[in-house]
Amino acid sequence: MIHFVLGGAKSGKSRFAENQVMFYPAPWIYLATARCGDYEMQKKINEHQKRRGHGWQTIEEPIYLVDSLQANNARSILIDCLTLWLTNLLLDNQNIEKETCQLIDALQVFQGNIVIVSNEVGQGIVPENELARRFVNEAGILHQKIAAVAHKFTMIVAGYPLDIKA
Amino acid sequence: MIHFVLGGAKSGKSRFAENQVMFYPAPWIYLATARCGDYEMQKKINEHQKRRGHGWQTIEEPIYLVDSLQANNARSILIDCLTLWLTNLLLDNQNIEKETCQLIDALQVFQGNIVIVSNEVGQGIVPENELARRFVNEAGILHQKIAAVAHKFTMIVAGYPLDIKA
Amino acid sequence: MIHFVLGGAKSGKSRFAENQVMFYPAPWIYLATARCGDYEMQKKINEHQKRRGHGWQTIEEPIYLVDSLQANNARSILIDCLTLWLTNLLLDNQNIEKETCQLIDALQVFQGNIVIVSNEVGQGIVPENELARRFVNEAGILHQKIAAVAHKFTMIVAGYPLDIKA
Repeated sequence: MIHFVLGGAKSGKSRFAENQVMFYPAPWIYLATARCGDYEMQKKINEHQKRRGHGWQTIEEPIYLVDSLQANNARSILIDCLTLWLTNLLLDNQNIEKETCQLIDALQVFQGNIVIVSNEVGQGIVPENELARRFVNEAGILHQKIAAVAHKFTMIVAGYPLDIKA
Repeated sequence: MIHFVLGGAKSGKSRFAENQVMFYPAPWIYLATARCGDYEMQKKINEHQKRRGHGWQTIEEPIYLVDSLQANNARSILIDCLTLWLTNLLLDNQNIEKETCQLIDALQVFQGNIVIVSNEVGQGIVPENELARRFVNEAGILHQKIAAVAHKFTMIVAGYPLDIKA
Repeated sequence: MIHFVLGGAKSGKSRFAENQVMFYPAPWIYLATARCGDYEMQKKINEHQKRRGHGWQTIEEPIYLVDSLQANNARSILIDCLTLWLTNLLLDNQNIEKETCQLIDALQVFQGNIVIVSNEVGQGIVPENELARRFVNEAGILHQKIAAVAHKFTMIVAGYPLDIKA
């Protein structure tokens, strides 16, 4: 079961996604794609860890999501979040199309339950900065691919779900 | 009765909200949080005033929303809008968490009917500017809190409502 | 029949809109508002052309949409997209209010089937740049007007439709 959870900044998407994963029996894996390089990000990771209680195991994996999925097949996993993973791929000059295809393939053979969180970033003005524009485009393409293979797709607005694919 | 109305720039959210308030008997209070400092804002306020007809009383209150609510308990009020209020709090270095908690408390004991308008600002790319990023995060947190205490929560897209919490 | 299709960057709105037009008998007109001035735009146009198969006729019209509609009354048309048309009007210092009114008038007497694609650009942070801010406001006003005359209005999120006016 693949559930895709998309929402804007501070929309409550991670909290919603955590609750979705916790419908399954513990233990649950929190697959964090954030790199702890900067203060803001570290603060956010700490907040998330503080909120989640017992039963959660954290795996930090900024790039090799596919390996983590394969190593934890049949488990209940929360990926938080795709846009940070995409940022890491872009900054490391990885082949995004190839990585995305491999992620989609891995999701389709995954035996467990997975909730995938990502940020909606494409409903504001087109950024002037070329890298930002590329990021917005790549995020849009990635979201379409994930939504297509997801069994459930929910948009979160101010903490409330809007079911788009049920 | 608390109705939260969220929408993007020029999405028709204020017009929709006005019509919601006008389902209740007049007079209605238009609680404007805008500061008339700049030309664009003044133009916007004038447009809104021109559109609203008889039966409306305007109160301009950029910061002390709670006082205005307490002074007008049991009335029918339109707050337009939360994002401008948040902007004012940020620029005046107010304690946003404390102000937000007090607003939530005041809303929960409010006896009248209130429609609260706010701007969705978190579905574009994460801003490079730190203050802008903080604003986006604070707006997201505020929207989650308001939506949680609202009896109704509507997203407006190009003038049309999407009921998220009915 | 007028169908308005709104979505963020790379949300799959054009593909969705193409499929909507293809429910009607061929031939179909692809009314492209893009100017081929820059490389990114040319690449995007080429991708779209490659995806569309036989039965499509392309008309490039960056400004005079109304003339194209009148010359092709009773046909099945896809306009892709309004935000590029608006950009062209702004850059050419055209009278946007007048052009928009004429477009709305032309749509209301149009005898064929038309699907109109546009970009949601107003759900991010308010841009600091004045022209960008004006663009966001004009786009919001235009979208409200189009949605008001449309028989159907759909928001696209990650390739999936959300019916707002059915």
